[in-house]
Amino acid sequence: MEIKTYKKDSFYSYTLGAFPTIELLKKHKEDALKIFIHSSFDNQEVISLIYQNKGNAEVCLNDKIINKLSTKGNTFVVGVFKKYSSYLDANKDHVVLVNPSDMGNLGTILRSCLGFGMKDIAIIKPGVDIFDPKVVRASMGSIFSLNISYFNSFEDYKNAFPNHKIRTFMLQAKNTLQETIFSKDELTSLVFGNESSGLPLSLLDDNSIIIKHSDEIDSLNLPSSLAIALYEFNKSKI
Amino acid sequence: MEIKTYKKDSFYSYTLGAFPTIELLKKHKEDALKIFIHSSFDNQEVISLIYQNKGNAEVCLNDKIINKLSTKGNTFVVGVFKKYSSYLDANKDHVVLVNPSDMGNLGTILRSCLGFGMKDIAIIKPGVDIFDPKVVRASMGSIFSLNISYFNSFEDYKNAFPNHKIRTFMLQAKNTLQETIFSKDELTSLVFGNESSGLPLSLLDDNSIIIKHSDEIDSLNLPSSLAIALYEFNKSKI
Repeated sequence: MEIKTYKKDSFYSYTLGAFPTIELLKKHKEDALKIFIHSSFDNQEVISLIYQNKGNAEVCLNDKIINKLSTKGNTFVVGVFKKYSSYLDANKDHVVLVNPSDMGNLGTILRSCLGFGMKDIAIIKPGVDIFDPKVVRASMGSIFSLNISYFNSFEDYKNAFPNHKIRTFMLQAKNTLQETIFSKDELTSLVFGNESSGLPLSLLDDNSIIIKHSDEIDSLNLPSSLAIALYEFNKSKI
Repeated sequence: MEIKTYKKDSFYSYTLGAFPTIELLKKHKEDALKIFIHSSFDNQEVISLIYQNKGNAEVCLNDKIINKLSTKGNTFVVGVFKKYSSYLDANKDHVVLVNPSDMGNLGTILRSCLGFGMKDIAIIKPGVDIFDPKVVRASMGSIFSLNISYFNSFEDYKNAFPNHKIRTFMLQAKNTLQETIFSKDELTSLVFGNESSGLPLSLLDDNSIIIKHSDEIDSLNLPSSLAIALYEFNKSKI
């Protein structure tokens, strides 16, 4: 198996760094193929965690491969894993990201989702590739604890989960987040648009929600909006 | 005046892009020195906004300078401005950032601060340079509407504002954000640590606050934590 720079159509991808590699081994051991460790890496605690959790993955010292794959200088551990499919739980609340375009943002969002117990995320195409090593790194390995599925259109998503109440986050909405009541007995989809263009006006309805901010800014950034929404949703559902 | 790549000790800095340049002209016209417009830029609305707000700044077409200064390809407008000092309002609430180390994060945080009406921000050194063009760009020009001051130590900050109630955000805190009551009649400082290391344990006290998240992640990212804190603080102070 020759290890090449990641491309969207590669059948495998990488974890860059010890932390996401350990998350890979703990949560998706069966998909881990190889673990590369740099010869100068001497954190014995991490090395033994890798050996304890490696399953069938091969562990090898290989500085050349690590230098080739890492985009930042401080990478000492790289995991290679087989890309896999995961499916959303129809009985859980969802986050739906329509056309997310920034890899760092997507990783940050996935980390917040896991932090607030939101484990099922739909991505409406076109959207960035969740398995790009930049997303995996920004997610700090959270990606391995989540169910993430792509849909060709928002309609396709809605048809797949007809029982979910759709809550689009839009600047044109009338309901403020702080006044919104989320019912425990209701399945909810929290829906967010693209970083630049937001959601199309056709998705505005009586269930749409706005996170109020001063008119001195155009909008909050996407991961910040999501963090606020997840915090408030999580709080009101308890 | 020869325009060089930005350095921390330069007396001037840049706005990269039309949006932050217009914010510069609207909020800090007196510090704007030059505006460069790319010859291929034909957004007449933006061009007339620039001319209406330019004050004494010189406007010129100069593709070479724009190509030299811009780090991303899609920059058509660059503003050059004199770096200035600003001072915190002793009668307003503050955000205090202890040793922030990421430029994109700092810009995102400044944008959220302005979005929630928090206009006074202290930075405890060492911390990234607010005038670095990467921070200015990530802030979407919010920086020009804020008072931002550096302090050599947290002690120095506290001595300067002895009437502010210090609220450190720490994972070791006992009070959860959602249960915390912020009094309208009290001046508050919301204090956040470095992206990797957080705040030193010496700052933990009975007023410290935690934003609860699941134990499946180590921490939320810094701009996300700040966005949640500002949202909740703003809500409870109303």
